[in-house]
Amino acid sequence: MHISTHTLSFSTGGHTQIYDITEEVQALIEQQGYMEGQAGVYAIGSTAGISTLEYEPGLVKQDVRAMYQHFAPYGHPYRHNQTWGDDNGAAHLRSLLTGTSFHAPFVQGRLLLGTWQQIVFIDFDTRPRNRRVVVQLMGSKKEAQG
Amino acid sequence: MHISTHTLSFSTGGHTQIYDITEEVQALIEQQGYMEGQAGVYAIGSTAGISTLEYEPGLVKQDVRAMYQHFAPYGHPYRHNQTWGDDNGAAHLRSLLTGTSFHAPFVQGRLLLGTWQQIVFIDFDTRPRNRRVVVQLMGSKKEAQG
Amino acid sequence: MHISTHTLSFSTGGHTQIYDITEEVQALIEQQGYMEGQAGVYAIGSTAGISTLEYEPGLVKQDVRAMYQHFAPYGHPYRHNQTWGDDNGAAHLRSLLTGTSFHAPFVQGRLLLGTWQQIVFIDFDTRPRNRRVVVQLMGSKKEAQG
Repeated sequence: MHISTHTLSFSTGGHTQIYDITEEVQALIEQQGYMEGQAGVYAIGSTAGISTLEYEPGLVKQDVRAMYQHFAPYGHPYRHNQTWGDDNGAAHLRSLLTGTSFHAPFVQGRLLLGTWQQIVFIDFDTRPRNRRVVVQLMGSKKEAQG
Repeated sequence: MHISTHTLSFSTGGHTQIYDITEEVQALIEQQGYMEGQAGVYAIGSTAGISTLEYEPGLVKQDVRAMYQHFAPYGHPYRHNQTWGDDNGAAHLRSLLTGTSFHAPFVQGRLLLGTWQQIVFIDFDTRPRNRRVVVQLMGSKKEAQG
Repeated sequence: MHISTHTLSFSTGGHTQIYDITEEVQALIEQQGYMEGQAGVYAIGSTAGISTLEYEPGLVKQDVRAMYQHFAPYGHPYRHNQTWGDDNGAAHLRSLLTGTSFHAPFVQGRLLLGTWQQIVFIDFDTRPRNRRVVVQLMGSKKEAQG
């Protein structure tokens, strides 16, 4: 059993912008030589989330945002905003419910996901950010060739 | 430390039908001889979910469906549906928010869950499917007897 | 690779009271001498949840409760309540959607979380409870000094 911890860094636009990070996670598994195990994927911060989604424009640019707007609308006078002179109360609520930790299993070095199932990072904050996603791999590696 | 990856396959009816898979997960732990570790349980696909629930008819057949219908109703004209000539936009949204990865710890070969807490697979799609759930076990095993 | 399973026990007030358990998880990692790995944090029961949240009073005492009240209100005549003479149907629905398993990675014995990101246990039930949260640590430990 091996373990290694990696960081993905990128710039985000906020307002429930959704990023497909499946290829980055898959690439780490291959680069590190893992065979069977799990990839833990973690959003660092309390205004972002990690889950899986079919990454197609109708869902990504409209339907997902409409759903979140329904139960935790931007622009609502949250107590959080009043207390801190902030405007991202909605982002905290969306993060809590979406979750910030996700795992995917892999076998023979390939993530086990559905055909239309991508690992997504969602930035719920109300301003551009530099974000970090931690990827922690645990599992067996290829045997060294003698 | 040992690791093994297994697949549960079953036919589902869709429309937020809920399946209790606790016994299948528990049986794998015992069959494989694990003692202490975690069971990762993963829905393969972007229109299903995994979580825990008290598996009783009132919740399973009515209350849970009413909750999901409130925030991501079937039959709504989602952009996803318009783009793809599909009708399962609601299923994608429900999956995103419910989550597709779940873990349960086990000790002495027994899952640590509450008395009324079952591991459930939920099929949110709008048609019958053949579904796969991946169960990945990591942990210690019984010592071989000398 | 090492693994160990621990239990946090505490008394809760219910009604979506939120508890910051970050320090308890961090303390276990240090006491056990872990260096790199993951902390699995599991709510035992079907009327509680685990996630991350900025632990500040505006969110904790008002905004989070208002969000949950919007999509799974206490006091609603759930079928669960009618069947069992119970009043906690809302608690089951909130638990299902929030999730009961959460993981955080750690490196050099320190949890990798955002500055304002705390691990929270939420008791959704409608009465005081004695609750258990299981923390399972997996990873490498400090080398024993020769």
